Parts: sequence; C-alpha cells; structure tokens
Amino acid sequence: MNDNIAPPGRLLRAPEHLLNREQMTAAPQARRGFLRQAFATASAALLAGAARADDSAAAGDPNILELPQHSLALGQPVALEGYGKPSRFEANLQRRQSPGLTQTRQASVSFAPLQALFGIVTPSGLHFERHHQGWWDIDPSKHRLMVNGSDEKMLKRPMVFTMDELMRLPAVSRFHFIECGANTGMEWGNVAVPTVQYTHGMLSCSEFTGVRLIDVLEMCGFDKKRARFVLAEGADGSSMTRTIPMELIARGDVMLAYGQNGEMLRPENGYPLRLVVPGVQGVSWVKYLRRIEVGDEPYATKDEDVHYVDLMPDGQHRQYTSIQEVKSVVTTPSGGQVLLDKGYYSISGLAWSGRGRIKRVDVSVDGGRNWREAVLQTPVMDRCLTRFSAPWVWDGKPALVMSRATDETGHIQPTNAELRVVRGRRSIYHNNSIQTWLVQENGEVRNVQVS
Amino acid sequence: MNDNIAPPGRLLRAPEHLLNREQMTAAPQARRGFLRQAFATASAALLAGAARADDSAAAGDPNILELPQHSLALGQPVALEGYGKPSRFEANLQRRQSPGLTQTRQASVSFAPLQALFGIVTPSGLHFERHHQGWWDIDPSKHRLMVNGSDEKMLKRPMVFTMDELMRLPAVSRFHFIECGANTGMEWGNVAVPTVQYTHGMLSCSEFTGVRLIDVLEMCGFDKKRARFVLAEGADGSSMTRTIPMELIARGDVMLAYGQNGEMLRPENGYPLRLVVPGVQGVSWVKYLRRIEVGDEPYATKDEDVHYVDLMPDGQHRQYTSIQEVKSVVTTPSGGQVLLDKGYYSISGLAWSGRGRIKRVDVSVDGGRNWREAVLQTPVMDRCLTRFSAPWVWDGKPALVMSRATDETGHIQPTNAELRVVRGRRSIYHNNSIQTWLVQENGEVRNVQVS
Repeated sequence: MNDNIAPPGRLLRAPEHLLNREQMTAAPQARRGFLRQAFATASAALLAGAARADDSAAAGDPNILELPQHSLALGQPVALEGYGKPSRFEANLQRRQSPGLTQTRQASVSFAPLQALFGIVTPSGLHFERHHQGWWDIDPSKHRLMVNGSDEKMLKRPMVFTMDELMRLPAVSRFHFIECGANTGMEWGNVAVPTVQYTHGMLSCSEFTGVRLIDVLEMCGFDKKRARFVLAEGADGSSMTRTIPMELIARGDVMLAYGQNGEMLRPENGYPLRLVVPGVQGVSWVKYLRRIEVGDEPYATKDEDVHYVDLMPDGQHRQYTSIQEVKSVVTTPSGGQVLLDKGYYSISGLAWSGRGRIKRVDVSVDGGRNWREAVLQTPVMDRCLTRFSAPWVWDGKPALVMSRATDETGHIQPTNAELRVVRGRRSIYHNNSIQTWLVQENGEVRNVQVS
Repeated sequence: MNDNIAPPGRLLRAPEHLLNREQMTAAPQARRGFLRQAFATASAALLAGAARADDSAAAGDPNILELPQHSLALGQPVALEGYGKPSRFEANLQRRQSPGLTQTRQASVSFAPLQALFGIVTPSGLHFERHHQGWWDIDPSKHRLMVNGSDEKMLKRPMVFTMDELMRLPAVSRFHFIECGANTGMEWGNVAVPTVQYTHGMLSCSEFTGVRLIDVLEMCGFDKKRARFVLAEGADGSSMTRTIPMELIARGDVMLAYGQNGEMLRPENGYPLRLVVPGVQGVSWVKYLRRIEVGDEPYATKDEDVHYVDLMPDGQHRQYTSIQEVKSVVTTPSGGQVLLDKGYYSISGLAWSGRGRIKRVDVSVDGGRNWREAVLQTPVMDRCLTRFSAPWVWDGKPALVMSRATDETGHIQPTNAELRVVRGRRSIYHNNSIQTWLVQENGEVRNVQVS
C-alpha cells in the first residue's frame, strides 16, 4: 500500500490510537504491573501515585518510580510563538493528498482526517482543500467585490465593495458543513479506497461569519421580479464561475463569508472572501469571490456544463444537481483502524443533509440486517454535521458496520444497490450511499462494498 | 502607550480593520476614482472589471487596469505544509501578554483578541492562556489518570487509565465557554486597561470532547451516599488542585476532556487531558489532569484557600465562589478601535453565564439611560458564549456604549456601582459588571468607568 494512502500512523478514537500495534501488544503486562504498583503507591502516599507511575510505565520497569520532568520543572512561557499549534505528538494527523487522483498539486484535493476528528467542528488547519488552480494569500486591502446586473435594469445600483465596507455591514454566524460534490466519488466503481479520510474526507464543518447576500442585493436594488439566478465568480486563475438559484439566496442563508471558526478564512479556503451556500456542493462556495452578477437565467459555465455533472445510465449528463443529499459515515471503527480486542466500543460517526436537519441515524453491525438507533449530539443544526454514537460489544467475529441517516424532510440515505438502480456506476459526483466497514476477525477494518 | 499593550495594528470588524488610519484617510479619493473606473470597465467588459481594478486601486492610479497575479498564474499546491495556518496578513492577530501583570512568563496570562473574533468559536491558536508553572507538551502514551477514593470505602475499584483506555469510552461533545476567575480583574480599581483583549480576553469558547466524569466514577463504584466532593489534580509542576462539588458532576456535564474544536487539546490547554467544568471559573478546569479523588469534604487546597478568593468590604475572604455569573461585553466598537465616520455600525459582542443559557442582551449607547434589545445568534447554548448584535447609526457625538446580559435563571448583569455595593473594590476575581466604552467625537474608543 502506498505510504501516502496508508492509514495514519496514529489512530485516534480506536483502542490503538495512542500506541502502535506492537506497543499495544506489549503493553498489557507492563500495564498490569504498573497498575499493581501504582495502587501500592497510592495507598501509601496518595498524592504522588499517578505522577510517579508515568516514567516507570515508559521505562517498562514498574519499580522505578520517579516523577516526570513536567511535574518538577518550569514549563514553557505564555505567548512564546504567538499563534498556537497542535502538540508535536499530533504531527501525523494531517490533511493528505490522494496520489494519482489529479495530475498537478495545484488542481488537486487534500482530504480531512475524519477518522481522528471529534464532535462536529473541523479545525481550520485540517479543513479539506480542493483547488482548481492552486491557492493564494490575497492582500485583503486590495481585494474587491463587484455586484452588478446582467443588464442595467436588473440592478439599480451596481457597487464595488472593499473588505472593510463589507465587514461593516450586519453579520451573521452559522455552523454549516461543506462537502465537495465529488466526495465518495471513488466508491462509484469497485475501487474502494482504504480509509474514511479518502472515502469521505472532502467534508468539513465550520462556524462561518459574513453578510447575507440577500442584504447586499437589496442594498443594490435588484429587480425582485426578474432576478432568478446569480453568477458567483472567483478571483483566482481558475475563473471559477457558478450559478446560484435565487430561491436559495432569498431564504437568507447564502453568505458573503469572511470568517471561519472565529477568525478570518484561511487562504486555502478563499481568504479574504468566499460564498457560503449551505447544503450545496462545495464548488458553488466560490473562493476569492470577486464578483456577483444578478441575472434571469442559468449561466451554463464550464464548471456546470462540463464538470460537476452526473453521467446517468442512459448516457446523458444531468446538470445543476447541487444539493448534497442526506448522508452519513461511521468514522470509528473505519478502514485502516484495528480493534485490538473483543469487548466494548463506541461506534461514532457523522451525518449531514443539504436539505435541513438530521432527524435520526441508525447503525448496523451485520451488514444492514438489523438496525439500532444511534444517539445524536445536540444541538442538531440545519445543514450542519451531526455527530452520532452507539455502543457496541464486539464478539470477535467478522462484522459489517454501517450507518444510515434520515433527514427532517424524510429523505433516507440509500444503499449502494438502491443508488445504482437510479444512477448507474459511471458517475463521479453525488454519491450519498451507505458506507460499509468490514471488521475482520483479526480486528483489522477494511472498506468493502455490499449490495 | 506600551507597544505590547497597544491596540492591535489591524482592527477587524470596525471600518478601519483592513487599512490603517492614514490609508483610510487617503483612500476615499482613490476609491471614488476606482469605483467610477470600475463601472466604466464593468459596462464595457463585465467579466474582468473587478479583477482589473485590484492593482489599480493599490497603485492609486485608477487608469492602470491590470489583472492581479493571482488571476493569471498557478497558485500554491494542496497540502504543502501539512497543518494549515492563517493568512500572512493576519499575523498581527495574536494572543498577547499583559506586561507587568506577573513576574515570570511561566506564571502569566496571554489574552485572546476578542476585538477581532467572529461568532462564538475561539480558534484554538488564539485561545487564552493562563499558566501557573508554564505549559508542557506531555507524551500522551505515558500519561495516566488515577481515580481513587479518600478512603477504601469511598471508591470500590480505584483505577488507572491510559489515554487510549479513556478514549475508548463513550464520548460527548459540547460547546462551552471557559473564563478565568480573574478576567476583568483590572476593572475593580480605576486602572482601566485600554482594549477588550485585556479587559475580557481571559475568555474563550470551544467544542469540547471527552468522557463524562460521572460515568467513570460509576465504573469505579463510588459511594453515592458519602461522596460529596472530588479533588482534581494536574500533573504539571504547579500541582494545581481544585475541589469540585458532586452536584455539578452528578448533572453529567463535568468532562474528562481530550478534544477541543475537533482535534486533541492544545498543549497550552492541558494536552492530553483536562477537566471541563461548565460554568465554573477556568482554574477548576484542571490541565494535564492526572488524578481524581472522591471525598466527603472540600479539600481546602492552596488554590482555593489563598488564591481565587474574594476580598469582601469587611476584610474577610470569600472562598469557593466558582460559578462565573452572567456577563457580557461589546467587542465592536471597543477600546482602541476608531470609528472613521458617522453613520451605520453593527454593535457586536459576547454574552455568557455560568448558570445556563443567555436569555436576552440589551445595548445602550448613552451610558445606560436607554436600552434596546439586541439580536442573539442561534442556537443559544447552555453555558456557552452567545454572540449578540444591534444596529447603530452614530451621529458623531460622544457615546457611551454598553451591553447588559440576562440569563435564563433571571440573573441580570450588574452595573459597576451595583457590584461594588456588595463586593467593594479590592477584589481580583469575579467581576461581571457592565463594561462601558466611550466613543469620542474624533471616533477613538476608550475604556471608561461610569457609575
């Protein structure tokens, strides 16, 4: 297996997440000794017990009980390096590129490590990337957004905004997922990729802050009777252009966003300005946003005519299918992880829908014959990731682990077989079918496709 | 004014946030020219208008219309540097230490830049820091948590957990604020510090993930009749020890947390394990958590006997006042910012309460004579920051901007005068009084105290 496509060295949220397999196999004796020794110490001198045990466990000799350095000495001072970073022990946890997927790294993808993330917020430093022409760190003081109409009557007051002018307007902040339309695209064929980072990692979730597009269009006096679509255009060399239907904008949730997770957008995510189109595939969340045009018909741009179209079984291409339908995936246990022993596990994963809130998630460990309802993390938010979990006692036999989400509109995530009846197997985009992980008798978890 | 304590060079979310004052003063002509030119261009050749204008505006000559480099060339490739970072244009946005506040940087504070943050999530890289003995990056494979009782009957099964054992247990994720008990401590006297970063910046908010402490205590078989308190002990050299009342734990919301904003805790915040005690002052959220002891009385440790006590007007010290009472602060406009012109502004700020959800926030621009209800960002979560906003048209005259929060238990944030009647002015901790910002006629915003 290619090094780059291999599962991450450290698997969080599985029993082996902090030790590699050899360490874990070797650990029980040491730890049993450690436990015994620790409690002997504890009853004699309660205060120092746990700390003393630290280094002894590390050295493998439970009789050497010394306080670790961090309990004895002065640590690092505040604000030494300014902007904070993860622990050095987390260095293996990164976005990763799938080699061979694209020809150049400027028109490529790096996937978010879903197997190791908690809750629903994606750390901005691990947010998935999809570029068509590479990313830029644009000087915000020079960036402009132009708002115009397709003709002179479509918009009474065309305007050009500086970033400071935009940021002075009333802002809203909302939690939303963003998913690339091509996420899980490799699963259309039988080319199953090994880990959830590569099957579902073009997915992230943030608190976005910005101005509602409808507010800006109203400032500019757009023609409410004639306006039916908006063209969004990016400033980078890919000239990304996408049509956004006015119905989505009129609902008030399409945003001219500059903030993400409390701070300015990251350069990879479109700094200083991107469109946020909740529930819609990521390509429409145009980065480095420089222009909004109001018109009365779809723009049929290259990125909606040729790309991001669905090849149907009859050989026709379906266009403008932008809503990300109800979907879920188990992230623990997932491909590349190893269950080191029988016993209790907390099955955990993510669910989302481009049509609204998640209503329920069911989990199966026998390939879909029996289902149990999972617990949802609250608050469940609109077009936002929802974390689910369900207890599971693994009996050591092969198990097929699945999740199936239902949204508040009643849409239910389809099986592979159900989706293929409608869509065939030659698509790239919009695969929301149920993901199956096979837990083998040796504890290794693999990506499999069941019908 | 000391360089370090000065307002940040770039003020976000105020009209000058992207340009310094000189640039802004110089900008109007250039921008008017730019606007005229851009629209002339726009009507002739819609597609290139906004982009062409970029560099011309920068050069100050609206007649030179050339596409910026980022619209012409190949950008940066994906996943070049692994873990992502903010834009180079955001380098000025940092946690900052308040010089002179403490003698050593290992026992100091760095404040979060609230004046520039959006929404409610604090980026982990800007989370406030408060250390008693410096921070450590502890190897999680060597870290242990011991759980014991104050005597043999208090806990049937004392245990030592590795991180992987803890992370295998059922997890919950929840959004909560954390505030240092000494936040806004400088305002007890008349020594008003200049910016909201220093008045209120020992405040952050994250999605925390971990195991409920009550679940672990039940695994260990604690004595539900006798157990009334828990001692939490950190592994760093400060030997931080705090008493947590069993009522809070029994509610199920005290967590053994390893996750923050989707990834592992940052080293400055207690990696790999800290206690999360929602609504309670930050010192009780013990970092580098190595031990939990269950007992039947408060532990009266050095950090609750000598520190984190409230000096009352009668000269007595009040102990164990750990709940962070209802509080709010306007972050825009706030001290150090400058309003460059009359006209529309969106007043924005944060509200929180250690007793539950925020119910309403009122805003005043005349020093508390008149109040208007602000809009709250939803969902409003329990013991979590809540963003509020209110429109304001500044008439160019001096204004006293305030916010006043009410929580769901009916507690209302007091004025300075009201709080001092009860507490005097010699305290360090637990100042939740209303903050006032004076907007001067020249647009400069200052921290002032009104009665």
